[in-house]
Amino acid sequence: MPPYHAIEWKNNRLILLDQRFLPHETVYVTLQDVSQVVSAIKEMTIRGAPAIGAAAAYGLALEAGKPFRGLNEILDAMNQAGKQLMAARPTAVNLAWAVQRVLKSAHAPTLPDVDAVRRAVVSEAHAIANEEVRNNIQIGQNALPLWPKAVTFLHHCNTGALATVDYGTALGVIRAAHEHGKKVMVYVDETRPRLQGARLTAWELEQLGIPYKIIADGASGHVLKHCGVNAVTVGCDRIAANGDTANKIGTYNLAIVARAHQVPFYVVGPTSTVDLNTPDGAAIPIEERSAEEITKIGEEWIAPRGAPAYNPAFDVTPAEYISAIITEQGIAYPPFARSLPEMVAKAQALRNANLRRDLVR
Amino acid sequence: MPPYHAIEWKNNRLILLDQRFLPHETVYVTLQDVSQVVSAIKEMTIRGAPAIGAAAAYGLALEAGKPFRGLNEILDAMNQAGKQLMAARPTAVNLAWAVQRVLKSAHAPTLPDVDAVRRAVVSEAHAIANEEVRNNIQIGQNALPLWPKAVTFLHHCNTGALATVDYGTALGVIRAAHEHGKKVMVYVDETRPRLQGARLTAWELEQLGIPYKIIADGASGHVLKHCGVNAVTVGCDRIAANGDTANKIGTYNLAIVARAHQVPFYVVGPTSTVDLNTPDGAAIPIEERSAEEITKIGEEWIAPRGAPAYNPAFDVTPAEYISAIITEQGIAYPPFARSLPEMVAKAQALRNANLRRDLVR
Repeated sequence: MPPYHAIEWKNNRLILLDQRFLPHETVYVTLQDVSQVVSAIKEMTIRGAPAIGAAAAYGLALEAGKPFRGLNEILDAMNQAGKQLMAARPTAVNLAWAVQRVLKSAHAPTLPDVDAVRRAVVSEAHAIANEEVRNNIQIGQNALPLWPKAVTFLHHCNTGALATVDYGTALGVIRAAHEHGKKVMVYVDETRPRLQGARLTAWELEQLGIPYKIIADGASGHVLKHCGVNAVTVGCDRIAANGDTANKIGTYNLAIVARAHQVPFYVVGPTSTVDLNTPDGAAIPIEERSAEEITKIGEEWIAPRGAPAYNPAFDVTPAEYISAIITEQGIAYPPFARSLPEMVAKAQALRNANLRRDLVR
Repeated sequence: MPPYHAIEWKNNRLILLDQRFLPHETVYVTLQDVSQVVSAIKEMTIRGAPAIGAAAAYGLALEAGKPFRGLNEILDAMNQAGKQLMAARPTAVNLAWAVQRVLKSAHAPTLPDVDAVRRAVVSEAHAIANEEVRNNIQIGQNALPLWPKAVTFLHHCNTGALATVDYGTALGVIRAAHEHGKKVMVYVDETRPRLQGARLTAWELEQLGIPYKIIADGASGHVLKHCGVNAVTVGCDRIAANGDTANKIGTYNLAIVARAHQVPFYVVGPTSTVDLNTPDGAAIPIEERSAEEITKIGEEWIAPRGAPAYNPAFDVTPAEYISAIITEQGIAYPPFARSLPEMVAKAQALRNANLRRDLVR
């Protein structure tokens, strides 16, 4: 395991690696209450759909640690905190999924008092975080048969240990390929405007000793044509029931360009990112962020002062551009409207089985 | 005319607007000899294919201003300077075209002495610069019938007055649409890695009072799908005989994405950018520039210190993705292998006619 953790729970506090200072400084921040978690998600101290989900779950655990006078009070507080958290970033579905899962555990009718609710919330947050890590490692394993012995990837944004609780999703499959002795090379989209590729993916690949080259996002066509790329891998913030996938802005362009070069385009993510309640991409809310993310780098203007910009943070890649969706339950192939519900059902069945096993113990 | 000039010839010196300081400072530099012009082209004090061509022509004029002991000496010096200039940026063909044109005028057998060669060189440099401006204005006129009354453009890189001697090519057609009363809106690709869109195109559009919004290059697919774009316009550094076009990195991606959305993709440039000696895109040399253009902004690292990057400065858009090529001689439609030679021949015939008229006077 690399010597960094995006998310840690320690002494009833949530410790986050502040990703805004990477790759230059490794700064950890300690959060004490849910409003700090909301800010950390909004300001992208923590980012990446699975990491946001786990951070939100721990945000509820922080809230549950406060003093309460009774069951109703703690449950009301949980519901309130859940609403705040879910509004922090609208596109990623893991956030809502994790919050709802923790809330459900808090509301279990068998819990007799405040302490029991508190323990259930913390325990469910841990369960989510631990499942994320296990799922990511499994995703990497599931993807292995797809890669030749020497494999060149093109990767957009950051989907490594930083974007998850540990190991990574799309970067996790690259890491697994490397760990299993394949000769790996990665072209890294710098991923404007916030440069998660240049800042974070490059940093993680350095830590892991995996060869890479950063490219401008607009260079991907040239690279796909001339540099022997075997596969494009991207993460996902929400996968609709038909396979349409929301991910970091630039993903859709990359998918179109991959198709033009007949390079397979893989979406990678745990089944918690699949939202069967969202029928298709048109129903996914797209977060628009401030113009200054584009017109400034740090405090420096890279455009005329105050220049207008349009900054959708995500785009939707239609299912038709996606070769397969790699999950911890296996690889979903088109038609996704059939394969995705199967994966989600498998994940749910497994969770239920584990729950029954725990109850029997 | 806007109150700035990318290129001016004044008191036998070449004055360039140093584009590396825009949009924050308007700094002019005065160049005294050809090696300074070579550096200015390499370091992108001046950039944009037509502007580079004119600057190179004036570079020869600077060289011709030195003391020489005879015809052979000045002609040798011209040839030497021409070689240096042509090597400064290999992809743009206007550079070679302008140099060869000035050299041809210098070598005219009718020129009796050093002074005559000197005058011929300066005069040909002026002719090239003046033709560029006239051509750009004509290009804007030629394009007008293509646009509806309210027209939304998506533009990559900078192809305005800064990239040319004045007025602009692809940005010139947008300017002409605006000047002829059409309601214009421009989405501006920021154009990584050197941000010519965010820095220069945005600045020019501000000067011209044309509404715009800067976008991350990777957002173009989302914008083409959702924002009612009527046309994509880009400039060109070299157009091969079959229509394959080299332009700023990211152009190829944009062309593929425009095709996917059935938005017309227009290449805009004077016929001096057409190189009938280059059969197709594979024969166009692609300049690769330093990794630090991607990994640093100014002095600040935006990736791990020393991170590897791959930085092709240009890419080639195959002719099949190009709806039309807009030149000062008219609009060339596919098949370009037939329409482009017609445009080039018209330009040559016009130049010859002007030359004969000048001789008759």
